[in-house]
Amino acid sequence: MVYRINKLGQVAESKSIDAFLITSSISIKYLCGYSYNFEIGPSPFQLIPAALFVIPSVKASLIIADNETDQLDTMDSRLSVSQYSSYVYERPLDFSAQFLRTMLDVVSENIRKHARIGVESDSLPFSVSELLKTMFPEILFVDITSDLAFLRMVKEKDELFQIRAATHLCDIGQETVLKYAEPGITEIELFNEVRGEMEKAAEKRIPIMADLVSGLRTFGGGGNPSSKKIEKGDLILSDLTPCLNGYWGDTCNTVIVEKPSTAQINHFMLIKETLEKTLELVKPGVKAKEIDSFLRKQLVSAGEYGHHSGHGIGLAYHEEPRIVPYNEMELQAGMVIALEPAIYTNDYGIRLEHLVLVTESGCEKISRFDHRIK
Amino acid sequence: MVYRINKLGQVAESKSIDAFLITSSISIKYLCGYSYNFEIGPSPFQLIPAALFVIPSVKASLIIADNETDQLDTMDSRLSVSQYSSYVYERPLDFSAQFLRTMLDVVSENIRKHARIGVESDSLPFSVSELLKTMFPEILFVDITSDLAFLRMVKEKDELFQIRAATHLCDIGQETVLKYAEPGITEIELFNEVRGEMEKAAEKRIPIMADLVSGLRTFGGGGNPSSKKIEKGDLILSDLTPCLNGYWGDTCNTVIVEKPSTAQINHFMLIKETLEKTLELVKPGVKAKEIDSFLRKQLVSAGEYGHHSGHGIGLAYHEEPRIVPYNEMELQAGMVIALEPAIYTNDYGIRLEHLVLVTESGCEKISRFDHRIK
Repeated sequence: MVYRINKLGQVAESKSIDAFLITSSISIKYLCGYSYNFEIGPSPFQLIPAALFVIPSVKASLIIADNETDQLDTMDSRLSVSQYSSYVYERPLDFSAQFLRTMLDVVSENIRKHARIGVESDSLPFSVSELLKTMFPEILFVDITSDLAFLRMVKEKDELFQIRAATHLCDIGQETVLKYAEPGITEIELFNEVRGEMEKAAEKRIPIMADLVSGLRTFGGGGNPSSKKIEKGDLILSDLTPCLNGYWGDTCNTVIVEKPSTAQINHFMLIKETLEKTLELVKPGVKAKEIDSFLRKQLVSAGEYGHHSGHGIGLAYHEEPRIVPYNEMELQAGMVIALEPAIYTNDYGIRLEHLVLVTESGCEKISRFDHRIK
Repeated sequence: MVYRINKLGQVAESKSIDAFLITSSISIKYLCGYSYNFEIGPSPFQLIPAALFVIPSVKASLIIADNETDQLDTMDSRLSVSQYSSYVYERPLDFSAQFLRTMLDVVSENIRKHARIGVESDSLPFSVSELLKTMFPEILFVDITSDLAFLRMVKEKDELFQIRAATHLCDIGQETVLKYAEPGITEIELFNEVRGEMEKAAEKRIPIMADLVSGLRTFGGGGNPSSKKIEKGDLILSDLTPCLNGYWGDTCNTVIVEKPSTAQINHFMLIKETLEKTLELVKPGVKAKEIDSFLRKQLVSAGEYGHHSGHGIGLAYHEEPRIVPYNEMELQAGMVIALEPAIYTNDYGIRLEHLVLVTESGCEKISRFDHRIK
């Protein structure tokens, strides 16, 4: 049972916030474990997937639709859960009004006249903010989006467990690419084998973001699998990013069908060795920009890459700490970062990526797959 | 090239609206064809996928991220497109501010002091509404959510083309279920074969909502495929709802592995015949509730179903006209509806679903698959 709501205490203090109305799915999952299936887009029966109202040390209430109660048994008992009528067939849909009424009930009990309410401005719907402003004209909304993002950077034990499990699926996926990559198979067929093995291991459907491109498209660095047939001599760039129980894994490999050229082997080995050397640098106190700069310097003679060198990962597939040229942030034990150096040149692209946990003394590879081109 | 922005004229007139700020992905896709990939959840580099600002007969501007420009070539030339800086690695992310600044530029040129702005209150972010209210304190937001939903009910030619293509994928998927359903295969393995064939036909990845359950779970009417092995005598309920180019298809079949019981055959045939008879009733002028009531009456002796008898479909997988007990709405030519009668009884569930287009004189089956239990 996930219950990290107490962490809002530090945000409350630093920004003098009286109460929080959390509306982004990621923050809700982080704070109390409730998740929703985003794969089929927004539900036609919900205003938003959920809302979480918190007064630190006093109250934590989750508001969800009454047709989304599967997870109730897994909720911490400190959390009170309010359900509203969502999907109905006996009368016209009015889930927005039902949600708003329920939310107002939850909020009204505890709100004071000039309350400062912490919100995520980009995910707070106008219909919600407008109702609250109408009922409580003197409350003030304070944006806490970035505070929440920074809260999530250092992972807790349960989160590491989930990230390891998601990354294990990446390992399975990368082995499957090597197994099925051969002339004549299309990218989309190859992807279907890869996803099939990953979902078999997960024992359920999982969202997967995947760059799976072959031949010339590797030069562009990524894209969805297409109906293009893989040919002899094609490189296949395979960046697999599955989401298991809300947490993402992320690794990349580049393989070749039949015989690589000397240049391709040299580039592959240069990236692989650079990635291994970089892992020796990763430890608490090192700045994100130092990792970025080391990676770029090692590879610049072979070709620059126009993207980040890496990124934090967890409930979002890209999050802080970003491993980018400007980032002065120091790594801390418990951060999980993906490192993905690449070379794009001579009409092809090669990218290799590992996921690592920053430990007290260095880092630990979470991805176990050994990068190989064939 | 899709350009249905003129349709907002009637909403403008009926609600005295001066300008529209459209923020839901479905409405944007409907009005100007721009779509986004929702399968991996909200982008970590965008406030919202897009916004569309319209002053009827004067201006139509689409605001999108500068890393989402693949579709620009397919946009109608009457639409002006503004891009803002989204993903960057050379400096800190500030896509929200960039989006807001760009949106303000687009809006400011043309807004008058007391303008009435048509918005979708549930998808309009607080950060957007707040900025506009601060800059133009006397504008008024008018909710047009349901107006847009009703605009979409009668499909245009290009939409029918897309729905037919999506439904063709359903036909392929249902044949694949019959082909691979055998003892020992798990639900998730079966689903992988089904999705594999559908995506092979689509020549790309597509979002698929799917109930694929076997044995006792058919009694519950649906759910995601699990790692349960399919056994002799299991019914398999297969409701496949793929999204191709933004438009959904939707059909359901129920099959059995090995030998059905007499009761199962009788129930299957009763539903199949009822569905066929119902199609004879579907024509312009018939009320949605009449279709619903006919279906329920034919099946009530065998068991009630606690869901709608059907629903409109298009850019949303469930939309108006809902085929439900209260709905007085008359069917019109050009509507597309899914009809999905079911029997849940004796520890099993059987549901069959066709997708039909209401024509001038009756209806035309869009789904071509012939329901069969084995």
